[in-house]
Amino acid sequence: MVIAPYRTDMSETAVDKIFRALMERIVTGDLPAGEKLRQDHIARDYEVSHVPVREAFLRLEAKGLAKSVPHKGMRVTELEPTEIREVIEMRVALEVLALTHALPRHDDQTLAEVDAARIACDAARDMITWDRSNRRFHFALLMPCGMPRLLSSIEDLHITAARHLFAYWRDRWVSRPDSDHAALLEAVRAQDLTLACDILRRHLRRVS
Amino acid sequence: MVIAPYRTDMSETAVDKIFRALMERIVTGDLPAGEKLRQDHIARDYEVSHVPVREAFLRLEAKGLAKSVPHKGMRVTELEPTEIREVIEMRVALEVLALTHALPRHDDQTLAEVDAARIACDAARDMITWDRSNRRFHFALLMPCGMPRLLSSIEDLHITAARHLFAYWRDRWVSRPDSDHAALLEAVRAQDLTLACDILRRHLRRVS
Repeated sequence: MVIAPYRTDMSETAVDKIFRALMERIVTGDLPAGEKLRQDHIARDYEVSHVPVREAFLRLEAKGLAKSVPHKGMRVTELEPTEIREVIEMRVALEVLALTHALPRHDDQTLAEVDAARIACDAARDMITWDRSNRRFHFALLMPCGMPRLLSSIEDLHITAARHLFAYWRDRWVSRPDSDHAALLEAVRAQDLTLACDILRRHLRRVS
Repeated sequence: MVIAPYRTDMSETAVDKIFRALMERIVTGDLPAGEKLRQDHIARDYEVSHVPVREAFLRLEAKGLAKSVPHKGMRVTELEPTEIREVIEMRVALEVLALTHALPRHDDQTLAEVDAARIACDAARDMITWDRSNRRFHFALLMPCGMPRLLSSIEDLHITAARHLFAYWRDRWVSRPDSDHAALLEAVRAQDLTLACDILRRHLRRVS
């Protein structure tokens, strides 16, 4: 299971690397809806055979980011405007569940990581850096729940939510400190579960 | 998107058919953890080429039911005992969300389908029939929410939950009328959202 979004580490395989690079390009809109993913070009760019590229394509398909179209090859999927409301409500349901299990298990180390991600988020000067830091903030907050399947589902929702955010905000994005993040961290530090869940719900419904 | 569990209809492709047959055999324990899935045998049994079998394997992998093991081929995954607690809590979170959106949209036709599934469930004399009817009951109840991504996630959780149920109850299963199902349908008929959600939460935590 992938536990941190956009992770890069020494154990990454060629498939992981190609999948993450393509995912990031689709999420940010660099590869737009309908675009053809060319197996031979990508294999050449990464100096690999077709096998890991094909495998990376299937992972993109499983995440709903690409789709094999008969006679047209692998294409970037369209953005579904109705999907974002579903994704927000599913994030609220699952992230509140994860936070409920995570909050009693936060220690100085995890709180320091949440705070570092919060500061990185506020300091971001472009949307790609902000998005990565924002996902790092939310994951650092929820990771202590220790529920891998739940965290994996939340990560999938983050990917779709980020794609919608980039599609609609990329041209209008402005750097700003996030007061919800600060309030959320404060409630977690105080071990106030009710308040923390209320802030998280409001935050996800507002910014997503 | 697959909207009804174990659906069979005219539009099913060879891949769908092979995927569903293998899924059902893994879920019910007929294909146990660690078992090798033999591409050539399955292709021969279904009178197809290796291509749709390979595709069905990848779908099983995406659902966590099979895994490609280096030098050992495709194998049925092990059951993770800790997974069931996660699956129950995720079902509670997502099914309560779906029910909240579905309840105001229930009409005579959807209520009749929920009731028919409830009766089929109570009448089941073996665990496989009961499991299918039980999933049909839960899906009929939630389908009117009209949220395809949410329903698809719930279906994945049902598949894993059913696999655990079969593993632990297959030898001890007994036919019995389900009073939770009756109470849930009554609360939905009365459009009592709070009561319906309370019963659903209790039911999922009890029977799963």
